[in-house]
Amino acid sequence: MQTEDLAQKLVAGDRRALARAITLVESRRADHRAEARRLVAAAAGTGRQALRIGLTGTPGVGKSSFIESFGLLLTGRGLRVAVLAVDPSSARSGGSILGDKTRMERLSRDPLAYIRPSPSQAELGGIARRTREAVALCEAAGFDVVLVETVGVGQSETLVAGMVDLFLLLLAPGGGDELQGVKRGIMEMADLILVNKADGGLLAPARRTCADYAGALRLLRKRPQDPPGYPKALCASAAEGTGLAEAWAAIEEILAWRRERGILAAARAAQARSWFEEEVRQGLLARLTGDAHQRARMAALGAEVEAGLDPSEAAARMLADLRAP
Amino acid sequence: MQTEDLAQKLVAGDRRALARAITLVESRRADHRAEARRLVAAAAGTGRQALRIGLTGTPGVGKSSFIESFGLLLTGRGLRVAVLAVDPSSARSGGSILGDKTRMERLSRDPLAYIRPSPSQAELGGIARRTREAVALCEAAGFDVVLVETVGVGQSETLVAGMVDLFLLLLAPGGGDELQGVKRGIMEMADLILVNKADGGLLAPARRTCADYAGALRLLRKRPQDPPGYPKALCASAAEGTGLAEAWAAIEEILAWRRERGILAAARAAQARSWFEEEVRQGLLARLTGDAHQRARMAALGAEVEAGLDPSEAAARMLADLRAP
Repeated sequence: MQTEDLAQKLVAGDRRALARAITLVESRRADHRAEARRLVAAAAGTGRQALRIGLTGTPGVGKSSFIESFGLLLTGRGLRVAVLAVDPSSARSGGSILGDKTRMERLSRDPLAYIRPSPSQAELGGIARRTREAVALCEAAGFDVVLVETVGVGQSETLVAGMVDLFLLLLAPGGGDELQGVKRGIMEMADLILVNKADGGLLAPARRTCADYAGALRLLRKRPQDPPGYPKALCASAAEGTGLAEAWAAIEEILAWRRERGILAAARAAQARSWFEEEVRQGLLARLTGDAHQRARMAALGAEVEAGLDPSEAAARMLADLRAP
Repeated sequence: MQTEDLAQKLVAGDRRALARAITLVESRRADHRAEARRLVAAAAGTGRQALRIGLTGTPGVGKSSFIESFGLLLTGRGLRVAVLAVDPSSARSGGSILGDKTRMERLSRDPLAYIRPSPSQAELGGIARRTREAVALCEAAGFDVVLVETVGVGQSETLVAGMVDLFLLLLAPGGGDELQGVKRGIMEMADLILVNKADGGLLAPARRTCADYAGALRLLRKRPQDPPGYPKALCASAAEGTGLAEAWAAIEEILAWRRERGILAAARAAQARSWFEEEVRQGLLARLTGDAHQRARMAALGAEVEAGLDPSEAAARMLADLRAP
């Protein structure tokens, strides 16, 4: 299939074309990369935009069941929902633990939904661009909501938070315990905290957890992008479907508030600019680390620094070795 | 004075030599820079190390009075205490609002203490290296504790947290209110939270604030570098001198715990390595932005990206313009 045909089918909403396009975006092959770039350019040309929502939560909070119930709520309202997954650990585990369709069976059969597992060979560096491009393709394909799911490991949340309009933190009741404790920095990124599994015997603990986090959020300085009363913590139950409509209402309130004030557009522009600058930085570093001699030199100096060499002195030596670009 | 003499006097604990050396470190003049580098190398040669403690807190929490009382507690125990300040805002305000000796009069007259105001013409980029080098000089001068004070603006805490063994967050009673609310991410960096002004009529609110933050800290996942029960929040009063000994005991407990496990040494090595890598990155970028044409090109592409150009496409164009180093 020619790129043009593929782009046309994609824009027409053909999901096989979307799947193929995302596969090209995920590929490392130079020719695929070139085609992917043309596709992304074509996608940007449509000017279509979806609500980009990031979702994180440690294993066991019920991310998949939440996404299934929440996604079905949205498709039930006629919204087209795409689910992408960012899971650096899949590079190690060799397989994706996110976006697993068997864990979202009903949503994956929904004609208004599209679920894409995270690429199995992804490492964080490449993930950023691939995911951003996959989001762009989903927007061009006419999806109204693009949900980017990430597992709570290290930098992946920061990465996702940098490419979405709104970031959700999903928790399970009993948030205070060691097993679930929120990784530092994540609560800071959350626009909305949802305590899942607020049903049956867990309803009371879920409400306590919700109150705990609401209290913690009140201790944080208000951000200019937050509407009055936000960020807040809400209870929800994917199993019983309770709290999901309220969560969506809160999301719409936040986004409407930001849209009216131009915060949403400004944030997207700033995100795009920082992605650009970051890629230039990465590109310059790649040239540095792409050269075996310089890579070895960098590693050797790094070891000397760990052993006591002044970092500035080491940096000066390294830079002296590098010709100016 | 020859660099060698200066270095000798510095190591001998001559505070005029230390002041002169830090001035050289803060200077932008090439010859000063070269001398500063020799001094820092000489300082590193002594192998002396101090406890490096970072301290942040928004204006009004009583940082100066806390540092004075806490510093006097330490000098009272025979410890030599150096106080450095990191205040990017001083670049704008034209003068330092931190490390102001008139606000720490008794400590500044203490023969065991040395207080250095933040350089008035500092911008964040340069501050990192200058402060690290000033810390190294203080260590070589035989100080037991180097306290790096920073005002709670943007990146300065992250910067300081990256060069100290332990990071303190100072709060005033009523931490929940908008005026003082902790900037996002700072609570995450704190190894110990101290609620100051826990005296008189503020004692009760201080205890409530302390409990609030203790609760919030319990919601965060435990970090491998934290001893059991840490990070914690404690009450203190710089005015009455209460809680200061307990704060120091907590600091010693944390540091001893980390030292025994090699966490302290590993953290310093990792900090040094990341400073090195960051300086190489900055150096490469400086070459990029040092070229007027490339700087203009970067800005133009950045604007195009904000207007909708694909970031990766823009980065590819920018990198194509740059010859490999």
